[in-house]
Amino acid sequence: MLKVFNTLSRRLEPFKPLEPPLVRMYVCGPTVYDHSHVGHARTWVAFDIIKKYLMIKGYFVIHVQNITDIDDKIINRAKEEGVSWKDIADKYTAEYFDLMAKLKVMPNINPRVTEHIDDIIEFIQDLIEKGYAYVTNSGVYFDVDKYPYYGQLSGIKDKKMWSQETFVKDKKNPYDFALWKCAKPGEPWWDSPWCKGRPGWHIECSTMSSKYLGKQFDIHGGARDLIFPHHENEIAQSEARFGVRPWVKYWLHSGYMTMKGEKMSKSLGNIVPLIELMKKYDVDVIRYWLSTSHYRSEMEFSWNALDEAKKALERIRITVDALLKEVEKGSPKGSLSDDEINKIYKAYSLRNSFHEAMDNDFNTPKAWAAVHGLLRLGNEALEGESYETALIVLQALREIDRVFEVLFPPQRTKDVESFIELLVEVRKELRKRKMWDLADMIRNELDKLGVALLDRSSETEWRFK
Amino acid sequence: MLKVFNTLSRRLEPFKPLEPPLVRMYVCGPTVYDHSHVGHARTWVAFDIIKKYLMIKGYFVIHVQNITDIDDKIINRAKEEGVSWKDIADKYTAEYFDLMAKLKVMPNINPRVTEHIDDIIEFIQDLIEKGYAYVTNSGVYFDVDKYPYYGQLSGIKDKKMWSQETFVKDKKNPYDFALWKCAKPGEPWWDSPWCKGRPGWHIECSTMSSKYLGKQFDIHGGARDLIFPHHENEIAQSEARFGVRPWVKYWLHSGYMTMKGEKMSKSLGNIVPLIELMKKYDVDVIRYWLSTSHYRSEMEFSWNALDEAKKALERIRITVDALLKEVEKGSPKGSLSDDEINKIYKAYSLRNSFHEAMDNDFNTPKAWAAVHGLLRLGNEALEGESYETALIVLQALREIDRVFEVLFPPQRTKDVESFIELLVEVRKELRKRKMWDLADMIRNELDKLGVALLDRSSETEWRFK
Repeated sequence: MLKVFNTLSRRLEPFKPLEPPLVRMYVCGPTVYDHSHVGHARTWVAFDIIKKYLMIKGYFVIHVQNITDIDDKIINRAKEEGVSWKDIADKYTAEYFDLMAKLKVMPNINPRVTEHIDDIIEFIQDLIEKGYAYVTNSGVYFDVDKYPYYGQLSGIKDKKMWSQETFVKDKKNPYDFALWKCAKPGEPWWDSPWCKGRPGWHIECSTMSSKYLGKQFDIHGGARDLIFPHHENEIAQSEARFGVRPWVKYWLHSGYMTMKGEKMSKSLGNIVPLIELMKKYDVDVIRYWLSTSHYRSEMEFSWNALDEAKKALERIRITVDALLKEVEKGSPKGSLSDDEINKIYKAYSLRNSFHEAMDNDFNTPKAWAAVHGLLRLGNEALEGESYETALIVLQALREIDRVFEVLFPPQRTKDVESFIELLVEVRKELRKRKMWDLADMIRNELDKLGVALLDRSSETEWRFK
Repeated sequence: MLKVFNTLSRRLEPFKPLEPPLVRMYVCGPTVYDHSHVGHARTWVAFDIIKKYLMIKGYFVIHVQNITDIDDKIINRAKEEGVSWKDIADKYTAEYFDLMAKLKVMPNINPRVTEHIDDIIEFIQDLIEKGYAYVTNSGVYFDVDKYPYYGQLSGIKDKKMWSQETFVKDKKNPYDFALWKCAKPGEPWWDSPWCKGRPGWHIECSTMSSKYLGKQFDIHGGARDLIFPHHENEIAQSEARFGVRPWVKYWLHSGYMTMKGEKMSKSLGNIVPLIELMKKYDVDVIRYWLSTSHYRSEMEFSWNALDEAKKALERIRITVDALLKEVEKGSPKGSLSDDEINKIYKAYSLRNSFHEAMDNDFNTPKAWAAVHGLLRLGNEALEGESYETALIVLQALREIDRVFEVLFPPQRTKDVESFIELLVEVRKELRKRKMWDLADMIRNELDKLGVALLDRSSETEWRFK
């Protein structure tokens, strides 16, 4: 039985989604004003692993991850660079998608704030009508005093600790927060019933999650620093509007990435951009390394740790490759010794250890310990040339790698066509230069590799035989 | 909730294995005296699909499939060909493994009778000691009258219908069956406490299943024609020896392969050897075609049906390929229309239809109907260039294809290295001939494809960047 640590209850709870086998998951995505850094990647890979584990448990996950493409930081960055806020947003959104896809993180829906302004206005209008929000000269604010459960997620019960957006002077209370901000001169704006302006930060997540996942859903994820005020505010807005409680059943938060013990953050200036990291390490090494720490723990970044991860993944791949070859040789035994029978059931037991670890709030370090047990068993299989042990270890690893997605050597399906096309291109050039021997050599070798060539007048077609 | 049709109870039963998540499955494999034919492949693919569906349901299956490598048919065939029985057995065992692996059917343990003679003798000895078997001049026989539940699996209650091995004259009753057969002159034999001889057919399955799966296990599979007497006898032997009941919880039987309405069988002379079929059709076409019929139904073989399957799989692959490319383009939308949101939930609903079909005694034709629904949704995604719809359809298809294993184009992982090596070889030749422009072109294009070249004095090394 899967248990997850729910920030809302501060304890491990059995995981029971609202409408199984559906799991609706919303994760806070990036504010696209700068390069994504390794701390971001940590959160996104963590929730991708959670998603993929839920999938092998028989759930089907619809995963929404938003993009904050309008925000003070974006506006400031645009000013600094003398470009439009949209240029900044588009540039870093494209980078984000590219890096995420490389890390095999592909949320199902990636809504952007600026394409949901109408939905956001409708949400705010409804809050005003229901008496949960008020309009001032500077914008629209959520009236925290009207919502009786404020502080439930963060556990912060002292109102003095709730203060936020303290620079705004016309709020009723220091802990009220903006739903709509009237534009200052030179700032981007959208029309609204209140003033030309833009949405506050928190309202976007309440709006876009409900649009795509409904008025209640199963998992809301994000980094730990979003608990207060962002997620606290999201809950207040959404429960106020929809009259449901709890709005989200499970709140999951990932721990910080640290460097020399300090939280990695733009403001501290100790960030490692993902794009830089990817120049030094294969994406699978990065994904592997990120998966080795429990998602709720702090994770310390160091170049040494990545070097170790690289070596570890290389060793893993060597074993997996050898196991694939052992099975491909295909020499099943006519009977197994007791030792071999035991190994088969041991593989099953290690596979269960993987599940037990993951069932315990997605404990990936313990899950990796089980994988390493399987790999040791795999190495014993290779020493003893045991087809059966190799096969069952691979059977377990294939299941497990639907979650980690790093164990098996990457597929190069796409590549192969490019290489064949390059060979055909080279051959075309050789034929022009009447170097028939080399052209024929290419044709013959390709034939052996299962590729047939068909020379038309000027072009050559190829196909897999 | 998965329900399976249990031949033992003659009804659909909820599937509850003895020690979940473990599922222990034994399937009757081939008697290796001739080419495996398409009727055999049907049974083996059917149980492979059952295994792989159980795996995506969260079970872990240990699958044992025996090889009968000593038997009257093998002895007769050897006599006909003037070779040893072992030559015949080895030849067709090798062919069987090769064909099975091509069809992606890989049982975890493949025990052979002749490598379990000691275990079989021990089993028979125990039956004699317990009073369930008796020794005559011609061998050892199971005393059916001693076992009170005979006929339970086949439902044959009339003792007159139980007659078997009627050519043996020294049995107590015509329905007793051989556990050990004394060798006639010229026949192969093994030493035993009773006479030099060989095991009867039925005892091997009781012996080898219990050796690898324990005294009770979850699923026993095989073709329908094995229900009586083979499986009936297996139950009698095993329950008699182990004192457990039921010995096997679920008995699953696959329907016949027919040709023009008649059962495909060697004796009727209407078989299609698998090895011939594979010359005409890709293995994936054959696996696909076999999966389109419900495993318990009769399945009519026709060349036309295979041609149709070939076309159907081509169409499926075209859609899947295009979906992969659509997602690879990677242009997620900033917001989705209601129609697109509906399509995402429709993909989920079709994925559930697949599960509902499979949960209903592995109803693959209905499961394929759900897949075709997904593919239609995929084609709509392609028309509308909807990344999100394409992505969720692929998410569902990837899960489903862990069972069918035919939807996605085959991996060509191994190939890519051969093509790169061919390019390196061609370039070496070009450098010898001082055709620097073409040699450099190859270097540059390979670089773009992520392959770095390092020229040493005479050799060139390459690596993926």
